[in-house]
Amino acid sequence: MRRTSRDIRTANRYRVLRQAIAESPASRPRLAAATGLSLATVATLVGELIDQGMLVDAGFEDSGGGRPRGLLAVNPRGGALIGVDVAETYVHVEVVDLALSVLGHAHEELRPGDHEPAALVRRIAGAVRAAADRAAAGPVLGAGITMPGMVDREGGVSVFAANWDWHGVPLLDLLAEQVPYRLYLDNPMRACLIAELWFGAARGRDDVLVVNLGTGVGTGIALGGTMHRGVSNSAGEWGHTLLVLDGRPCHCGRRGCVESYIGAPGIMRSLREISPDSPMLAADDQTATLARLARALDEDDPVAARTLRTTAGHLGAALADLVNLLDPEIIVLTGWVARQLGGPLLEQAREAVTRHALRRPLESTEIVLSPIQVNPVSLGAATFALEGALDAVGRAGD
Amino acid sequence: MRRTSRDIRTANRYRVLRQAIAESPASRPRLAAATGLSLATVATLVGELIDQGMLVDAGFEDSGGGRPRGLLAVNPRGGALIGVDVAETYVHVEVVDLALSVLGHAHEELRPGDHEPAALVRRIAGAVRAAADRAAAGPVLGAGITMPGMVDREGGVSVFAANWDWHGVPLLDLLAEQVPYRLYLDNPMRACLIAELWFGAARGRDDVLVVNLGTGVGTGIALGGTMHRGVSNSAGEWGHTLLVLDGRPCHCGRRGCVESYIGAPGIMRSLREISPDSPMLAADDQTATLARLARALDEDDPVAARTLRTTAGHLGAALADLVNLLDPEIIVLTGWVARQLGGPLLEQAREAVTRHALRRPLESTEIVLSPIQVNPVSLGAATFALEGALDAVGRAGD
Repeated sequence: MRRTSRDIRTANRYRVLRQAIAESPASRPRLAAATGLSLATVATLVGELIDQGMLVDAGFEDSGGGRPRGLLAVNPRGGALIGVDVAETYVHVEVVDLALSVLGHAHEELRPGDHEPAALVRRIAGAVRAAADRAAAGPVLGAGITMPGMVDREGGVSVFAANWDWHGVPLLDLLAEQVPYRLYLDNPMRACLIAELWFGAARGRDDVLVVNLGTGVGTGIALGGTMHRGVSNSAGEWGHTLLVLDGRPCHCGRRGCVESYIGAPGIMRSLREISPDSPMLAADDQTATLARLARALDEDDPVAARTLRTTAGHLGAALADLVNLLDPEIIVLTGWVARQLGGPLLEQAREAVTRHALRRPLESTEIVLSPIQVNPVSLGAATFALEGALDAVGRAGD
Repeated sequence: MRRTSRDIRTANRYRVLRQAIAESPASRPRLAAATGLSLATVATLVGELIDQGMLVDAGFEDSGGGRPRGLLAVNPRGGALIGVDVAETYVHVEVVDLALSVLGHAHEELRPGDHEPAALVRRIAGAVRAAADRAAAGPVLGAGITMPGMVDREGGVSVFAANWDWHGVPLLDLLAEQVPYRLYLDNPMRACLIAELWFGAARGRDDVLVVNLGTGVGTGIALGGTMHRGVSNSAGEWGHTLLVLDGRPCHCGRRGCVESYIGAPGIMRSLREISPDSPMLAADDQTATLARLARALDEDDPVAARTLRTTAGHLGAALADLVNLLDPEIIVLTGWVARQLGGPLLEQAREAVTRHALRRPLESTEIVLSPIQVNPVSLGAATFALEGALDAVGRAGD
C-alpha cells in the first residue's frame, strides 16, 4: 500500500498516544522529545486527543524557573476497547480501558460444531456481551477480533481459515448483525505485532519482526514504523518458508517448511525422532508435551536438552533468514511455545543465529522475548480498535 | 527508517517526474490521473521541476472545447546523470540525459592490482572523465556509483566488499577528491530495484521485489512505494537465506544458501552433478558456461534441459519463500543469468513457485523478466543521482 501524508499524520497520532500511555502523566515537551516530533505537531495532536476524550489535563510540573508545564494523562474513562482472540479451540475476550487496565473478560471453549460460521458468530457475540457486561459501563470505542487463517481486512468481509475449511465467509457482516460496536478483523500474527509496537519490546522501533511460535508459526512485519500487510493482506507467512527443500511434509502441502520443524507439532516430531518412546510425548496433546518438555529441561533431562538444541538450531537458522533478508532492528519472540520454552530457547537460538546470519545485519539486530504478560493476541485485537478510533479522529480532522 | 511528511513529498516528486519521463509530453491533469495525486499537488511539483530545469513547457493540447491544456516535457538539456557500475572485473560508466538518452559511456576491465582502494579510485575517476568528455557538455547533476558488497550509504563513507577483503574503506571520501560531482554510493541490487521502479516493470507498483540473478543473487525490496534498506543498510540478502539446511557450502560460511544453488557457480555445480564431463562446462568461466547452456537449451539438449529444470526448481522454491513472507505485487527477475536463460527459466520457475507458494499471496503476485534493455546497474546508479537532485529540490523548497 502506498503511504500518504494522512498515513504519516495517523502514525504520528499513534506515536503520541503510545508515549502518553507508556509515561502518564507527561508534558508536551516530554512527548515531543520522546517521539522525535516537533512541539507544534505534538501540541496539535494532543489537542485532538483531548477533544476526543483520550487524554486529559493532569496538573502541572515545575519547569525549573519558567512557566509551569501542563501535564497530560491518559483518560481511563476515555472509552473501553474490546479484544477478541478466536482460536481453533476457544474464544477469549478482554475489555480494557485506555490505560490498559482490564475491565472484564470472558473465555469460552469451542466445540467442533461451533466451527460453522453462524454458530461461531453466536459464540463470539455471546462472549463479547458477557465480557462487556462484567466491565464498568462506558463508551466502547470498538472491538478487534482475530481469526486463525487469512483475513481480508481491507475489504473487511472475508475469512479463510485453512483448518476449518472456510472460504470467503463474510464474517464481518455476520458479526455486525450481532455485535453493536465498530469491528476490526485481523489475524493473530498482526495482533501480536501491534501489541509489541504499542506496549511491548518494539515500542519506538521502526523495523520490527514479531515472531509468533505456537502450533503454527509466522511473523508480523513492521518496516519504517508501518505494518506491512502485503498486496493480498497475507504477508508474514514465515512458517511457510523453507528450512529444508523436500524436507518434512507440511500441512500447507509443501515440504520442508519452517513450521514443520518449529511449530509445536514439529517440535513433538523432533522429540519423537530423538526418543520414540519418551514419556514426555503425550499422544496428540501439544500443550501437555511442551509443558513436560519445559519441566524436563529444568531437571537437566538429556533428551529434553537434545530436543531443545535441535529446535533452537532450526529456529536460529530460520531467524537468520529474516535477519539476512530484512535486516530488522529487533525480533521479538512471542506465542505460547516461546513462553513455555522461554530463556533457554532464546539463548540457544541466538547462538544458532550467530552461526547462520551475515555479520553486518546480525550486529544491528536485537532478539528478545516478548515482555507482555497478558494474552498478546487479545491485547493486540483491542489495539486494532484503539487505532481505529484514532484513525476516526484523523478523518474528522481532515 | 521512519517516514516523514518530507519523505512523502519527495516520493510524490519522484512519481510526477517518473510519469513525465514515461509519457512526455503530458498535461498536468494527465500526470495527476496517472499518479493518483491531486491536480493542485501536481501543479506545485511541476512548478518546482520547471524551476529546476527538469521539465519544460511543450505547447498545448486541445481539451475538447475548454481552454487548451499546457503540456510538459522532460528537458533533455536539464542536466546529465552519470551511472557507474563497479563490478569485480570491470568499471562501466554511462552518461544519460533526463530523457534517458545515452550521451556517452566508458568501459574498463579491472586487473587484480586494481582492487586496492587507491588504484580503484583512479580507475573509476578516469572512466568517469572519459565518459563525461565523450558526452555533450551540460550540467552534471550527480554521479551514482554501485559497488559489489555491502555499502554504508547513510553515513556515506564506508564499503565492505567481501571478495576484495575491504573493511570500512572510506570510498566516498576518496572518490570526492578526484570526481568533481555530487556522489551517491549504493549496491547493485538496489540499483536494479530503482531502475525497475523508474523505468522498468515496477513503475507505478508499491510492493516490489527485484531479484538479481548473477554470480551472486539478492533482492531489492520496495514496500509501500519506498525502498527498504534495513537498519544497517544491508537488507535484501535473499541469496543468503536457506534453501537446504546443511546443504551445499556457501562462500558466506553458511551451508545451503539460495545463492549456492542459483548463483552462476551454483548452476555450474548442478550441471556438473548432472553430467560431470559435460562439454558445456568451461572450467571456472561462468559466463562461457552459461552461454553454452543457453545455446544447448535452444538445441533441446537433454542435459541442458535437466540443468534448467533443476535450477528453475531451486529458483521457484526460493521465490515462493519471498511470496509467502512478503506477499509482493510483482517480482522482477534481472541480472545476467536471468537475461541469459530468459523465458525458459521464467516459465519453469513460475511452475515451481506455483507448487511451493500459498495460494492466496501467489494469486496476487506477478513474476516477470526485466524489460530494461541497457545495463540496469549503471542506469540505476544514474537514477540514484537523479533522486539526489530531486531531493535537493525538496530541501530548497522546505
